[in-house]
Amino acid sequence: MTHPFQADTGTLYLSAPDVIRIVQRMGLSACLAGVASRIERDFLRWHEFDKSARVASHSELGVIELMPIADAEHFAFKYVNGHPGNTRDGLPTVMAFGVLADVATGAPRLLSELTLTTAIRTAAMSALAARTLARPDSRRMALVGNGAQSEFQALAFRDLVGVRELRLYDSDAAASAKLLANLANQGLDIQVCASVAEAVRGADIVTTVTADKSHAVILTPQMIEPGMHINAVGGDCPGKTELHPGVLLGAEVFVEFEPQTRLEGDIQQMPADFVVTEFWQVLTGRHPGRTADAQVTVFDSVGFALEDYSALGFMRDAAVELDIGSMLQLLPRTPDPKDLFGVLRTPVVTAEMQGERAIV
Amino acid sequence: MTHPFQADTGTLYLSAPDVIRIVQRMGLSACLAGVASRIERDFLRWHEFDKSARVASHSELGVIELMPIADAEHFAFKYVNGHPGNTRDGLPTVMAFGVLADVATGAPRLLSELTLTTAIRTAAMSALAARTLARPDSRRMALVGNGAQSEFQALAFRDLVGVRELRLYDSDAAASAKLLANLANQGLDIQVCASVAEAVRGADIVTTVTADKSHAVILTPQMIEPGMHINAVGGDCPGKTELHPGVLLGAEVFVEFEPQTRLEGDIQQMPADFVVTEFWQVLTGRHPGRTADAQVTVFDSVGFALEDYSALGFMRDAAVELDIGSMLQLLPRTPDPKDLFGVLRTPVVTAEMQGERAIV
Repeated sequence: MTHPFQADTGTLYLSAPDVIRIVQRMGLSACLAGVASRIERDFLRWHEFDKSARVASHSELGVIELMPIADAEHFAFKYVNGHPGNTRDGLPTVMAFGVLADVATGAPRLLSELTLTTAIRTAAMSALAARTLARPDSRRMALVGNGAQSEFQALAFRDLVGVRELRLYDSDAAASAKLLANLANQGLDIQVCASVAEAVRGADIVTTVTADKSHAVILTPQMIEPGMHINAVGGDCPGKTELHPGVLLGAEVFVEFEPQTRLEGDIQQMPADFVVTEFWQVLTGRHPGRTADAQVTVFDSVGFALEDYSALGFMRDAAVELDIGSMLQLLPRTPDPKDLFGVLRTPVVTAEMQGERAIV
Repeated sequence: MTHPFQADTGTLYLSAPDVIRIVQRMGLSACLAGVASRIERDFLRWHEFDKSARVASHSELGVIELMPIADAEHFAFKYVNGHPGNTRDGLPTVMAFGVLADVATGAPRLLSELTLTTAIRTAAMSALAARTLARPDSRRMALVGNGAQSEFQALAFRDLVGVRELRLYDSDAAASAKLLANLANQGLDIQVCASVAEAVRGADIVTTVTADKSHAVILTPQMIEPGMHINAVGGDCPGKTELHPGVLLGAEVFVEFEPQTRLEGDIQQMPADFVVTEFWQVLTGRHPGRTADAQVTVFDSVGFALEDYSALGFMRDAAVELDIGSMLQLLPRTPDPKDLFGVLRTPVVTAEMQGERAIV
């Protein structure tokens, strides 16, 4: 059976229900591993990409960002917001969608939800970095911030890093209870802690994934133990940090794309000459990564467009393989492309004329 | 009857056939006038917008751009390409779509085709500028470049500026013949000319809307007559110009958003201190615009995100009024927004499971 995407030059559309079904059919573990593998492959060819820091539009309530990237074949971008107050109105803090287009023609070939996919790719990226930077015998992870992304982080670290114990903390106890219930019987020993310090004590890896848009101090130097790997996910836009500067001063710091992380990551607090290493340099062997068991490593993650490029490609291929998705007619079709005016003379059949105005 | 857009917090989707039907139902003249009126209204409140130059990704074959803009209520962006070689493969040179989102929550509320809409908004912008800058008695327009956008330019200038005579030139004679056929019996006296110079001679307004991605010299100083208004549409990205620098030196030059036009417009050929005026300053009365009948005025148009913001709003309101469009489920729905993981447990019904995998 041929998926319409293979026969058509239109735009494949993957709705949120479509991607949920892809993940249900493939299994979340396979998706986390598959996306991590794509990200690794794409980071290994770092220099083939035309990279830029994302374009952000800030308001008092949040931020809306566009994250473009391209190689010689595909242009990708993600639309993503960050509105910490949204959960009060029953909306997610982070909502996203994205597009893959052909560089040769500019035609958009895939439009996909990226809310669920972003949680998967962020967790896959974090786990990939930790597999490379944390001590190989890391088994216990503190997970500070137990919101929408936390279960994905936990499972990615279980599958890709070998984490077996979780120590949870969230200022909202209901969030920790939700995580505990969601990850029961998943092969993880989970304890809810009363403070960040309690959660972090004795951990091999510390993941911070909190949502407040402020200069928060989630981790202080007193909490840090030799050999820890810190996966700092939540400090990801100007004015939004999680780590005390002292934590960064005592660690070797790794980033995705330095120009973007200088603006958005926890290192926004540091002087411009504070030394960091781009993670692709470790993957390609240009930089050694962790050099001693007692070293403290920090992955100052902000989320980079290349990870969305990788994730969009994964979801496109999975949709075609599983025969999921529908085709959008986003572009007018005309026998003579110089005669755009001519399309106005043609009788058209639109979705709701076909009785198809269901939510798709 | 309530349009689903009014009852739903999802994303209204306007396909290319949907927008064709909106234009067919309202009439192209009403759309051109309506979009011009929106653009004028939005340019009059210029300072309420968070503006930035567009983000461009260049390849050997063309360019893909993202054009974001926001005011306090809405964030808008357009995806648009420019690939002059596309017509050889039966694809349009320019293809576009765009999004309107709520600034307060980041939720995307409208996804619309913008290929046809861009032709309408570009023509509406050109005509609005000419109505303000050209001599009021302008009746004859030279139209150089008779491709996909040319009919829209012609009709906008007929309706909004009072143009009654067209002088056509295109290096592709078939393009001029197509325009002539498309605009027969539209109240315009049209002649096809053998050269640019012949088309331009005696014209009140000269519109250049050519597609080559090169430093072309379509208009030379010898062709320019006192009192002309030049509507330069096709010089709209780095390396792509239409006017000889001497034409700019002999004219008063108006632009949309100066930082973007310095990079992309015909003035990319000029020194950084070459004086230009942003068009909103004329609309608001801060700058006099044309000050003498013999003055030559140039509108160095590159297309600015604000015009797409205006056009998206027009199409959204027209769709709701005419009950056109469908709703996309681009975002996962969860009773607890902190429990994104929970959506993976829910049974989902996707479009093709409903037998709806038609192209919509």
